[in-house]
Amino acid sequence: MKKLNILVSNDDGINAEGIFALVRSLKAIADVTVVAPASQQSAVGHAITVNYPLRVFPFHKNSDFFGYAVEGTPADCVKLGVKFLLKQKPDMVISGINHGSNTAINIIYSGTVSAATEGTILGIPSLAISLTSYQSQDFSYAAKLAARLALLVAEQGLPPKTLLNVNVPAVSEEEIKGVKVTKQGISTWEDRFDVRRDPANREYFWLTGNMNVIDTEPDSDQIAIRENYVSVTPVKYELTDNILLERMKQWGVEKLK
Amino acid sequence: MKKLNILVSNDDGINAEGIFALVRSLKAIADVTVVAPASQQSAVGHAITVNYPLRVFPFHKNSDFFGYAVEGTPADCVKLGVKFLLKQKPDMVISGINHGSNTAINIIYSGTVSAATEGTILGIPSLAISLTSYQSQDFSYAAKLAARLALLVAEQGLPPKTLLNVNVPAVSEEEIKGVKVTKQGISTWEDRFDVRRDPANREYFWLTGNMNVIDTEPDSDQIAIRENYVSVTPVKYELTDNILLERMKQWGVEKLK
Repeated sequence: MKKLNILVSNDDGINAEGIFALVRSLKAIADVTVVAPASQQSAVGHAITVNYPLRVFPFHKNSDFFGYAVEGTPADCVKLGVKFLLKQKPDMVISGINHGSNTAINIIYSGTVSAATEGTILGIPSLAISLTSYQSQDFSYAAKLAARLALLVAEQGLPPKTLLNVNVPAVSEEEIKGVKVTKQGISTWEDRFDVRRDPANREYFWLTGNMNVIDTEPDSDQIAIRENYVSVTPVKYELTDNILLERMKQWGVEKLK
Repeated sequence: MKKLNILVSNDDGINAEGIFALVRSLKAIADVTVVAPASQQSAVGHAITVNYPLRVFPFHKNSDFFGYAVEGTPADCVKLGVKFLLKQKPDMVISGINHGSNTAINIIYSGTVSAATEGTILGIPSLAISLTSYQSQDFSYAAKLAARLALLVAEQGLPPKTLLNVNVPAVSEEEIKGVKVTKQGISTWEDRFDVRRDPANREYFWLTGNMNVIDTEPDSDQIAIRENYVSVTPVKYELTDNILLERMKQWGVEKLK
């Protein structure tokens, strides 16, 4: 098989440990190009930059890591990589390895998933990979698994509009129970706003809160990672609610005008 | 029926003509609270602000328009409105009226839709409304229709996780052919990057391109608006690809580890 050509991005920024670990691992099986945000872009959702220009800077770390640092969002990086920086369309887009899980409702907020979504929109098989901890710096197992999944996806292909969202429990390789194909969980956030005062005594607000884990099904992403399984969720951006669509016709909505 | 309590937001910013028109129209049927971005937030997708604080300013225009201006994204506005600014949970969230259509792939990039998505996540029936033109300042028909749809949704309810995405053709009311329940189109962008030079002769890039309209089905949002129908699409954020989920088990992905 021809060597894979993989575009790597993330949302933690090009200087994050997770993207180094991912690139190191993928280089054994692929030609890798890194196009990643110059700075941290968590929770940007599927934002793209249309009202401002984008700047790109070469980024070197040690002798073995080079990438393009983009002053933009993860989706910007993938668009710019595919449509401008890369000489040929990549075979795959891989985003990560993110610090912190991207399960359940977080899939919608996630910049990591967004880079993979943009790859999918551009017709390229894409994966998003997250480590379920904000603290752990041990990306080694997640990086190894990413390369194996990349080879499997290259072999099997992905249907149009669908990406794989992978979450790896932040435990030692021995504690990992296995890999599970899962569905998106239904857990959401219990949001709160901290009310604070700046040095000039003006009020400001800071979003905080806890994930309210209401999932119970073992084949949900949320429960799989809690039980130390790697969770692999096929995520499809086909948003029409076909059941309501039919029901709405009975509402008389088409008679409104 | 008790008077509705509606939270209004948008992505064009609190000073945009579309939100004034919407609020003027909704006030006839509801108590309205406006919580909207202080500045233009197009194409922010479902971004939320977690790494920075949010500031809120009172915003008055004439004597009949008051709102909270938030230095944040549309999703931030809805979260802050529902979880902090409003004394009671609103009966409905309505986002718009956006300048420019939000159909097909644009649903994923849209800040307007994102405000309605956040309302839905918070368990509130939500609508996003867009006028299919960047130029037209005539929001009168779209605003009138928004109030009618709000009453219909109040009567019928919406299932959990589903919002209504409404696109109104920018033509005179007489030219509107009717209202159609539609599905999300499959059209995407043909992206390009303009390469430019700043005054110091440094290169920068600007995203541009054209919508590549490949939809042909009359019940798609893209074709409905082209034929001067109002398009109402039920949009559901339930992202699991259940077909691939089953097929992936044959891949041996669960034997990877």
